[in-house]
Amino acid sequence: MITLHTWTTPNGRKPIILLEELGTPYDIVPVDLGKRQQFEPAFLAISPNNKIPALVDDDAAGGPLTMFESGAILTYLAEKHGQFLPAAGLARYRVLTWLHWQIGGVGPMFGQLGFFSRQDNADATGHFVEEAERLLGVLDKQLSKGAYLAGDEYSIADIAVYPWIMAATERLGSQLGATLESKASLQRWLGLVGGRPAVRKAMAWAPG
Amino acid sequence: MITLHTWTTPNGRKPIILLEELGTPYDIVPVDLGKRQQFEPAFLAISPNNKIPALVDDDAAGGPLTMFESGAILTYLAEKHGQFLPAAGLARYRVLTWLHWQIGGVGPMFGQLGFFSRQDNADATGHFVEEAERLLGVLDKQLSKGAYLAGDEYSIADIAVYPWIMAATERLGSQLGATLESKASLQRWLGLVGGRPAVRKAMAWAPG
Repeated sequence: MITLHTWTTPNGRKPIILLEELGTPYDIVPVDLGKRQQFEPAFLAISPNNKIPALVDDDAAGGPLTMFESGAILTYLAEKHGQFLPAAGLARYRVLTWLHWQIGGVGPMFGQLGFFSRQDNADATGHFVEEAERLLGVLDKQLSKGAYLAGDEYSIADIAVYPWIMAATERLGSQLGATLESKASLQRWLGLVGGRPAVRKAMAWAPG
Repeated sequence: MITLHTWTTPNGRKPIILLEELGTPYDIVPVDLGKRQQFEPAFLAISPNNKIPALVDDDAAGGPLTMFESGAILTYLAEKHGQFLPAAGLARYRVLTWLHWQIGGVGPMFGQLGFFSRQDNADATGHFVEEAERLLGVLDKQLSKGAYLAGDEYSIADIAVYPWIMAATERLGSQLGATLESKASLQRWLGLVGGRPAVRKAMAWAPG
C-alpha cells in the first residue's frame, strides 16, 4: 500500500493528482502545517527535511520505500506505472526539463512571494513579483506551442505546475491577478488541466 | 557531440563535473552572465527560461536533443551513460530525492541569500540565512549516515549539492562561515568530493 503524508499546499496536492490519475489505491496521512506537525519526530523520521509531501510504498521493487520531495515522488510514481513520463527519448527529457523548471523556479519563487507578501517587506515582495511575472511569461509562451507544458501529451510537468498557478490565482491575486488574466495560453491550459476528473478531485481534497 | 552552454556559477558547474566524471567529449559555449548573454536571442532559442546551463546533444537517442535545467541535465547524462544514478530500485529514488532537495531547496535558498545579502535588506537576508542554516543542518545529518548524500555511492545528488556548498564557503562566509565550519560530516564530505579529479577540474573551469 502507498501512504502519502501530505497537506493542502501546492506541493502537497501534486502527488494526490498523480495518484488519482493512476487510479492506484493509496492512503493519506494529513500533516497539519498549521499545527506544525511537520516538526514532529514521527514525521521527521520519514521526511528529514521537515517538508511535505512524503511517500511510503510498502510494495516498491526492492523493498519498502520512503521518500520525499514532490518532484522525486512524481518521478517515482510515473516510472512505477509507466505513465505521464515517457520511458526514454526526447519526450522524456522535455518532461523532466519542465518538471525541474517548476521545482527550481515556480515553486520557490511563488512560495517566497507568498511569504514576503505577508511580511510587509515591499522590496522583497517586488523582487519576487518580478520573478513570478517572468516565470508566468515563460509558461504562457511555452503553452502557446503545444497543448501541454512538455508538448502534446499531459505529463507530470503539468501536474507539478498546475497547483502552483491555482494557488497564485486564489491567493496572490493582488500581486499577479492582472498578469495571470492576460495570458491566453495559460488560461486555456488551466481550463484543460483543471477539467480532468483526477485534478478536480485532488484539488478538492481536504483532511477528513 | 555534446555542447554545454554554461557559466561559472554553481548550477553552471554541475554538468561540467558530470561530463568530466563520465569522460565523454563535450564542448563548452560560455554564456557570460556579466554581459547578460543569457538574454540574447540565440541563447533564448535554446533555453526559453533565460538561464544556464543548457545542453545540446546532437547524438541523443531519437534525434538532436536540446534541454535546460541543471537537475534535468544531470538526470539525462546519468541515464544516457548508466552511471551515478541507479537505473531502478530504492537506491535510484534516494538519489532522486536528494537531487530534488538540492534543486528545490539549496539552490533557490542559497541563491536568494546571495541576492539579498547584496541588497542591504536585513529582514530578507535574515530569512534566507535561517533557511540556509536549516538546510545545512539537514545536509550534515544526512552525511553523518553514509559516505555520500544518497548512501554509500557517489551520485548526481552529490554533484548537484557540492558546487553550492563551495560557493557558500567562498562567498557567504560572513553569513554562513561559522555554521559551515561546525558541521563535521559536511566537512568530511567536502574533502571527499572535492578530492575527485573530475570535480577539481570542473571547479577550476574558466572561460578561455
